[in-house]
Amino acid sequence: MNVEAYMTELGERARAASRVMARADTASKNRALAAMADAIDANRAVLAEANAQDMQNGREKGLDAAMLDRLELTPARIDGMIEGLRQVAALPDPIGGIRDMNYRPSGIQVGKMRVPLGVIGIIYESRPNVTCEAASLCLKSGNATILRGGSEAIHSNQAIAVCIRQGLEAAGLPQEAVQVVETTDREAVGRLIAMPEYVDVIVPRGGKGLIERISTDARVPVIKHLDGICHVFIDAEADRSKALNIAINAKTHRYGTCNTMETLLVDTAVAAELLPELAEHYGQLGVELRGCDQTRALLPGIKAATAEDWDTEYLAPILAVKVVAGMAEAIEHINRHGSHHTDAIITENYTKARAFLREVDSSSVMVNASTRFADGFEYGLGAEIGISTDKIHARGPVGLEGLTSEKYVVLGDGQVRV
Amino acid sequence: MNVEAYMTELGERARAASRVMARADTASKNRALAAMADAIDANRAVLAEANAQDMQNGREKGLDAAMLDRLELTPARIDGMIEGLRQVAALPDPIGGIRDMNYRPSGIQVGKMRVPLGVIGIIYESRPNVTCEAASLCLKSGNATILRGGSEAIHSNQAIAVCIRQGLEAAGLPQEAVQVVETTDREAVGRLIAMPEYVDVIVPRGGKGLIERISTDARVPVIKHLDGICHVFIDAEADRSKALNIAINAKTHRYGTCNTMETLLVDTAVAAELLPELAEHYGQLGVELRGCDQTRALLPGIKAATAEDWDTEYLAPILAVKVVAGMAEAIEHINRHGSHHTDAIITENYTKARAFLREVDSSSVMVNASTRFADGFEYGLGAEIGISTDKIHARGPVGLEGLTSEKYVVLGDGQVRV
Repeated sequence: MNVEAYMTELGERARAASRVMARADTASKNRALAAMADAIDANRAVLAEANAQDMQNGREKGLDAAMLDRLELTPARIDGMIEGLRQVAALPDPIGGIRDMNYRPSGIQVGKMRVPLGVIGIIYESRPNVTCEAASLCLKSGNATILRGGSEAIHSNQAIAVCIRQGLEAAGLPQEAVQVVETTDREAVGRLIAMPEYVDVIVPRGGKGLIERISTDARVPVIKHLDGICHVFIDAEADRSKALNIAINAKTHRYGTCNTMETLLVDTAVAAELLPELAEHYGQLGVELRGCDQTRALLPGIKAATAEDWDTEYLAPILAVKVVAGMAEAIEHINRHGSHHTDAIITENYTKARAFLREVDSSSVMVNASTRFADGFEYGLGAEIGISTDKIHARGPVGLEGLTSEKYVVLGDGQVRV
Repeated sequence: MNVEAYMTELGERARAASRVMARADTASKNRALAAMADAIDANRAVLAEANAQDMQNGREKGLDAAMLDRLELTPARIDGMIEGLRQVAALPDPIGGIRDMNYRPSGIQVGKMRVPLGVIGIIYESRPNVTCEAASLCLKSGNATILRGGSEAIHSNQAIAVCIRQGLEAAGLPQEAVQVVETTDREAVGRLIAMPEYVDVIVPRGGKGLIERISTDARVPVIKHLDGICHVFIDAEADRSKALNIAINAKTHRYGTCNTMETLLVDTAVAAELLPELAEHYGQLGVELRGCDQTRALLPGIKAATAEDWDTEYLAPILAVKVVAGMAEAIEHINRHGSHHTDAIITENYTKARAFLREVDSSSVMVNASTRFADGFEYGLGAEIGISTDKIHARGPVGLEGLTSEKYVVLGDGQVRV
């Protein structure tokens, strides 16, 4: 197979399909999503068989337990895909919405219309349900998409692709609106991220290594998600019980998620009161603490935090703890060492809450809430293609709107420039 | 001079200044803009002298007349800079605005706050007044900026930079919020576009060659402006007088601008009626026509358009003319051959107007108005840093809002994830 020619063909077809998708009406898109859900429901046995083949190959290749777990399409996960498709169908259609139509002195009326980005390339790793999730979001937002899943999930992904095509066909939409790359050749990724004539944006979903590699090599814009080094700052005027609850929840609700707290900052005024109690809770939950000198003066048994700890996303039951002289030092620490993902202040002070919200340069900034809320579903986006740590285009959880753009529309009665 | 170390230092300073600028209040930013205007007014003689030196060097280097014209800081252009600064001061401050704060079932309240991008690098060519324009827009939008002007304008730009720093100082803002690169070494550009740790986005302003080079080499996002291959489509149901006025204005109001029409599309139903009259007007104004076969059957004297003509931005008194079978063919032609910049339909038909607005994939889509209106001032943005032909982040004329992003803000009362 000539991978370059194959990818170019996918690109050409996607570009053509994107024109049809851009003008597809809401009812057709929703019909396609419902028909995809039906097709998946009707093909459970086929999906299970394809997945069993991937699982067997994975075991033979020696994939670790975590990877095999992500690869598995359990009946519950198939239910989840079906439910997800129906949920996306129920979301409002973002495309074509017009805002801010204002008359100008020249007599023209100018506003903005929400439009699809065009063709979106999605590159992901083992989880085959991403195929369905990503396809549904791109479809609802009027885009064509080229999906490149992990090679270990190739049979599962191809089986899902058949159901997706059935859904598109049932709704009279072009089957090329969602194309799943059929080769596992890595050259396909290299080509996918370097065809600006056919692909408008790349969304990589996976580990940091994958995302960094793609960002470096891509010749089209990338909506990327790198580290989540999230902070909770307990202010001198924090409510004691809110502080304890949030500090525990933000660290221990789940360890491996990007919105998990990795560093706890505590105002020196309340450190002696709160840290011993917090340490006891963390100890019971098996969380290892690494502290600054002041923290260790209060909690003598714990490890010293090194310079590296402040810049580390543990994704594990480890927490760095630092005592700070006040909010200014906390904000300085967050903006310097954080990853601009999600950071929270716990305080009852109105003025400090307002300043923290404005001055912390992160995609989500919170007052008196757990960092674990930074999530497209919790934010009411209805769905999430990922969380962007970029500053341009989309920041934070990316839903349907992040897969769109706005163009200007101008209505006139024959006006010309004078 | 070690250019790399120098640029790194500018980057570090800009990053530090960007933190102060992000929290600067509206009054301070406006005071700085007013003080810059005053400083420029008070230093007219100094600016004139610095500019005279650039002009003399330019003449000695054999710069052409057009380049020398762009380089010159006439008293009227200095007035324009002062007026521009005062206009930007009068614009609403986009930073800190919060929208769509909604309660979620968990009890948290989620919305979006408009924030600066951080550090913006601007790379431009000979016009020294861009220094002032770009600085004012970046400042008002709460960003720090590093400006790299053309080497031929170095003395003018440095003299303007002194006035800018005076203005920042008078308002108590960090002077490093606007830094003008002091070396003409081209290595400085290479370094500026490859420091993602210090620079968040690059805005190149200049010819297509400059922009393509920067886009290819940049390691940070680029808000770029490439071709403007704009179309006017005269529909079968166009109002005759609107069609004639707009077709003439869109081509002949100015030839060298990106929003000038380069290809005229005419429905076959009205071609015989309109093209001869249009050709007469164009002939009087010295516009050369290049037509498709059907056009030439109606206008036997004109040149044949080649395949290349449909893809060319003339920036000159030349117009490609094509007769099309209807709107579908016009849209197909525009989406295929245009540059997704600005395209207009002339029609009295409601349904066709609505479909054209939705289906044409351009940053500005117009009904019954001249493409020449695609401009930040005409759209009411108050100012314009450029026109983006990108699809992500900002599309079309880019004003203050294009230099900002939105972060999520979350307000809670102690909520945790369950």
